[in-house]
Amino acid sequence: MSTIANDTLLRALLREPTAYTPVWLMRQAGRYLPEYNATRARAGSFLGLATDPGLATEVTLQPLERYALDAAILFSDILTVPDAMGLGLRFAPGEGPRFEHALRTEAQIRALRAPDLERLRYVFDAVSQIRRALTRDGVQRVPLIGFAGSPWTLACYMVEGQGSDDWRQTKTLMYSRPDLMHHILGVNAEAVAAYLNAQVESGAQALMLFDSWGGALADGAFQEFSLQYSRRVLQALRREHDGRRVPLILFTKGGGGWLREMSDSGADALGVDWTVNLGAARSLVGERVALQGNLDPSVLFAPPDSIAAQARAVLDAFGTIAPGQRAGHVFNLGHGISQFTPPEHVQVLVDTVHQHSRKLREPGR
Amino acid sequence: MSTIANDTLLRALLREPTAYTPVWLMRQAGRYLPEYNATRARAGSFLGLATDPGLATEVTLQPLERYALDAAILFSDILTVPDAMGLGLRFAPGEGPRFEHALRTEAQIRALRAPDLERLRYVFDAVSQIRRALTRDGVQRVPLIGFAGSPWTLACYMVEGQGSDDWRQTKTLMYSRPDLMHHILGVNAEAVAAYLNAQVESGAQALMLFDSWGGALADGAFQEFSLQYSRRVLQALRREHDGRRVPLILFTKGGGGWLREMSDSGADALGVDWTVNLGAARSLVGERVALQGNLDPSVLFAPPDSIAAQARAVLDAFGTIAPGQRAGHVFNLGHGISQFTPPEHVQVLVDTVHQHSRKLREPGR
Repeated sequence: MSTIANDTLLRALLREPTAYTPVWLMRQAGRYLPEYNATRARAGSFLGLATDPGLATEVTLQPLERYALDAAILFSDILTVPDAMGLGLRFAPGEGPRFEHALRTEAQIRALRAPDLERLRYVFDAVSQIRRALTRDGVQRVPLIGFAGSPWTLACYMVEGQGSDDWRQTKTLMYSRPDLMHHILGVNAEAVAAYLNAQVESGAQALMLFDSWGGALADGAFQEFSLQYSRRVLQALRREHDGRRVPLILFTKGGGGWLREMSDSGADALGVDWTVNLGAARSLVGERVALQGNLDPSVLFAPPDSIAAQARAVLDAFGTIAPGQRAGHVFNLGHGISQFTPPEHVQVLVDTVHQHSRKLREPGR
Repeated sequence: MSTIANDTLLRALLREPTAYTPVWLMRQAGRYLPEYNATRARAGSFLGLATDPGLATEVTLQPLERYALDAAILFSDILTVPDAMGLGLRFAPGEGPRFEHALRTEAQIRALRAPDLERLRYVFDAVSQIRRALTRDGVQRVPLIGFAGSPWTLACYMVEGQGSDDWRQTKTLMYSRPDLMHHILGVNAEAVAAYLNAQVESGAQALMLFDSWGGALADGAFQEFSLQYSRRVLQALRREHDGRRVPLILFTKGGGGWLREMSDSGADALGVDWTVNLGAARSLVGERVALQGNLDPSVLFAPPDSIAAQARAVLDAFGTIAPGQRAGHVFNLGHGISQFTPPEHVQVLVDTVHQHSRKLREPGR
């Protein structure tokens, strides 16, 4: 078992005691950082950056040089998996992702297969390189989080061919030919589980499943088409590696109404967005899972005093952890950090989370 | 008091017994109907249509000619109110609404005033004309619903100047200068209450407050910046007119987590989107309010059998109403109907709702 200087994140995710609340930010290696934009310019494109293990390592570490973050997260994209299935991922400048071969016919869907993991070697190479770059003299600074999109969220892009406000093609298929949608989701679940297990083999020490579009589904459809397959992935994952437990995080954006059902999915922690009251969420899930979240990323546009106040409010909403209580909170945003965030505001956030959460743990509170 | 042939909607909203579940659809007069598109072409533009009482009356009645809907809803737009405040509403072809004079400076915000209602005369004229058009030989077919945007939702467009994924300008103002945001919201609440009361004077028989962007707010911010001002509007509204109670509906898209607090706002009914389980929502709000919703509009892209099954599932989720129980359900979509909806699918939906809900009320169930 390797040594991690700061394993606060892993312990919080496993609901073990910590001296303070760990914090990392979704998309912490991203466009709000000038050094990220410089590396991306060298790479020529987003995909050029994501598929080059050396450059992916470089940008993964950039936010850790600036801020006292408690985790690194692999720099990659959830759509690498359908790309490896042959759908042809493209990022047109100024637009979002697009697939050249969106799934539109029954024949295409029936031909879908989980990808040869060799086609995703560049991701696993990035994971290994990042692990090495995080380690000096045998001691790793902070843990490395790996991730993937949920089977449902991948299916949204695979059927629609691009992002959407209403996922019209996707939902038309789901309501018209649920058998075909279940076929896609089954393939995706198999692919995502294999992909995440390979990330663990390569060095990822915690895993996050991004169900970015589960919240677009109706109650009932969410359980059938999203949660069922997230659960299938989570239950197929390696839970230990290198002598250490690998915590699993499930995040459904807009999934605040389903937290109780999600707490039973095999995840160690649930991500929650900012519409949720963390205290109420904690009552709901009890000691079954830790919680991750949930500051509105727009708070980071405000002046420092307001950022600090809002960060403290999130910590206070989660509340204190009594001795012996199995509870864990990982501070995060409720969505990816905006490209318009002033980098110095992130410093205020990280420092406030560390300071205020230490105070909340002082005896006598 | 005028006579209404079918007042099922009003009774359901007031949690009085009904023979079946009434149904209407958000944006039922809209682009999925060829006759609507023909009228809009004659009007030349969306605003031309919305500001001409005769044409607004024409399109309001079109869906009632096709389907056995239980209500008419005024054809208009929530942004008429800020337009009357002088913000300069424009609809560029192929884009959403834009304001020429978005609120960006403290001086602009401090100068904001509730509009002279004379500038909205065209709306009140449309309400009166629709009422007349709905009535033959002294008997009105179905009730007429009036509406407005919530103070928060109007503020989103007024500050941002247009629609947005993240409401960056709006939230930056809210978190940086909450005093200015509260000033806007106070003016909006006053304006919206006066506007809705004038709709009632002109003939609207139920009112709906569309809080389309309340769900973009963090827990805490929602209560302070959205719900507080929706409540202020609801409590300033005329509750009776022409000898009849005027039911009030509050709909926060993405507000499923706040239903209990919303049930205490002065609304008679709460709109809910499709992520919410209607049975769970009913348990939560008890007998305090009726519920309106909540089919995913995308269901209407599916074949008729699937539409019927999903509509029955929504009715079943709400459940039966025991004799003497104060409960009410108004069937609707969880969001506006899509322009891509096949018109014949709406027929299937309306008929299924009426038939299945009559069955649910049969004795012995």
